[in-house]
Amino acid sequence: MQRFLARDAKFAYSPEHASIGTVEPGERFEVESVEGFFGYFSSPADFTPERYAEAEAHKWAVTGPISVAGATAGDAVAVTIHDIEVATPGVVVYGGYTAEDPLEWWDDESACEVYPAEDGALHFDERTTLPTRPLIGCLAVAPAEGTRHAKLQGRYGGNMDCRELRAGATLVLPVAHDGAGLYFGDCKALMGDSEIVGPPEVGAVVTASAEPRHRPAAMEWPRLETAETITTLVSGTPLEWSARQAFRELLNWVVEDYELARPKAALLLAMVANAGICQISNTDYTAYCTVPRGVLEPYRPGSDPGVRTCPDPLVCDVRRAGQDQS
Amino acid sequence: MQRFLARDAKFAYSPEHASIGTVEPGERFEVESVEGFFGYFSSPADFTPERYAEAEAHKWAVTGPISVAGATAGDAVAVTIHDIEVATPGVVVYGGYTAEDPLEWWDDESACEVYPAEDGALHFDERTTLPTRPLIGCLAVAPAEGTRHAKLQGRYGGNMDCRELRAGATLVLPVAHDGAGLYFGDCKALMGDSEIVGPPEVGAVVTASAEPRHRPAAMEWPRLETAETITTLVSGTPLEWSARQAFRELLNWVVEDYELARPKAALLLAMVANAGICQISNTDYTAYCTVPRGVLEPYRPGSDPGVRTCPDPLVCDVRRAGQDQS
Repeated sequence: MQRFLARDAKFAYSPEHASIGTVEPGERFEVESVEGFFGYFSSPADFTPERYAEAEAHKWAVTGPISVAGATAGDAVAVTIHDIEVATPGVVVYGGYTAEDPLEWWDDESACEVYPAEDGALHFDERTTLPTRPLIGCLAVAPAEGTRHAKLQGRYGGNMDCRELRAGATLVLPVAHDGAGLYFGDCKALMGDSEIVGPPEVGAVVTASAEPRHRPAAMEWPRLETAETITTLVSGTPLEWSARQAFRELLNWVVEDYELARPKAALLLAMVANAGICQISNTDYTAYCTVPRGVLEPYRPGSDPGVRTCPDPLVCDVRRAGQDQS
Repeated sequence: MQRFLARDAKFAYSPEHASIGTVEPGERFEVESVEGFFGYFSSPADFTPERYAEAEAHKWAVTGPISVAGATAGDAVAVTIHDIEVATPGVVVYGGYTAEDPLEWWDDESACEVYPAEDGALHFDERTTLPTRPLIGCLAVAPAEGTRHAKLQGRYGGNMDCRELRAGATLVLPVAHDGAGLYFGDCKALMGDSEIVGPPEVGAVVTASAEPRHRPAAMEWPRLETAETITTLVSGTPLEWSARQAFRELLNWVVEDYELARPKAALLLAMVANAGICQISNTDYTAYCTVPRGVLEPYRPGSDPGVRTCPDPLVCDVRRAGQDQS
């Protein structure tokens, strides 16, 4: 299996970077994802002003760009995550968390903590251990124009910090340059929605594959697909704008792919879709909007006719009402 | 059982309203919650400009104020929802949903739809039926100062549109006036997080009880408690401010009630708490921050010592790791 190495990490997304290799459509490959603080902190004692400054200068290393054979400017690329193997302890940098405005907490970093993370569990302290739920914080294609710092995000993907970008998910990104130019980085052991306080950063080995895909007319922003859900991801400010656009983007998707008139699709999504927060830690805020596929199944072209009852929109599957009772 | 009637509904929250009755601590009572469009639309044919104007003038009727014996200004009141019985079909008013900015969709209302909702199911169309998940859109105490339109929200509660404010939940509100002065209204059959498009408004009979409670020092905003979770609710603008404050409010709560130093509590919440969106349809945006009690259980004063493993922070319970394996 091809493996792309941490030594080829960059600190930006850019069409000017030389490709570090090419993968064929569907080929599985491994990417070494660099721990967020670039390995500067392996124990709390490592936290000094000097090392902190160095770590900050090396934050958001992303491994890439990786070319995808057949990916063409103007189309899309679908990146499937098969596995995220946590390869380091989880690192956080923290402060007192006393400012009235939590956004200021990011400027009050005076210590670090390192959590052992092995075998799917993060050892928080002597009282508790938490199951890991590894995710990829940064996954991007080369942006359409110019060079963007790896900490940023936009229509090209980037530092979206979506906790559903994990094993089993497929992220679909619009391709701006032939070959796409994929970058991977900023994995976390686990995190809640919103990243108001920093979650544990980990180095990881991501196993992925990528396929060129026709770009749907309705697609303006990244999409995330799982077996159970479809999700849109929009970054901007203020957050309410991002959330509303993520809803609109999902509505456009549903109207394009399912047999539902636009108003009816909007009313259905109002009942069962969730607009939520990926991250509000950055300069643009990433919102998501997600809907279970099961709710949409009756409107899929070619689906079986008949009334269905969705057992719970939050965890809806595609079984028909009559089958549920058997 | 005392029953508070729709005919006593108001269109504002105000300390100047005369109480419509008094409940004893823990006494179960019923409240008739008025359907959001005040019954003006019982079929799509009812939608005319004249009726729409009348319905808009009667929007956000809330039944109250109900006095709670022993509730004292400066303390809090805990309102437990035992049942929400949907009593009418679900009503939505809608438009074309074509504006680039979904906030403008609220100004483009040109038709209505009425969905039968009985026996826990909402009949969406000939292809699908959705299980209802009834919630209370508006639950408030009389605000500290002045009269607020019933569509508004703030520290006194109000039109928060939190979909977890449903049977089994307890909403704790700060009390500004002796007797608290509870108002109930704006129930929906079901909705997703964020209310970017209007969900089905229903008339309902809410069964509730209320208890005066000491107001914790850390409590500045409404709190929502269930058997599994604790949640804070903050309304303001922009939404990222509300979300960050909801996180801070939850952090203050955890630090006050559990044996966790502030930085450690913040880092734990970063891994497992979710900051999300109740509604961004209004002038102030309501965010929530929620954490499963199970994650906090090892830090509860008097809890059993020993390392626990939380099986999944998203649905974590309080069982110990050793017991899980049995």
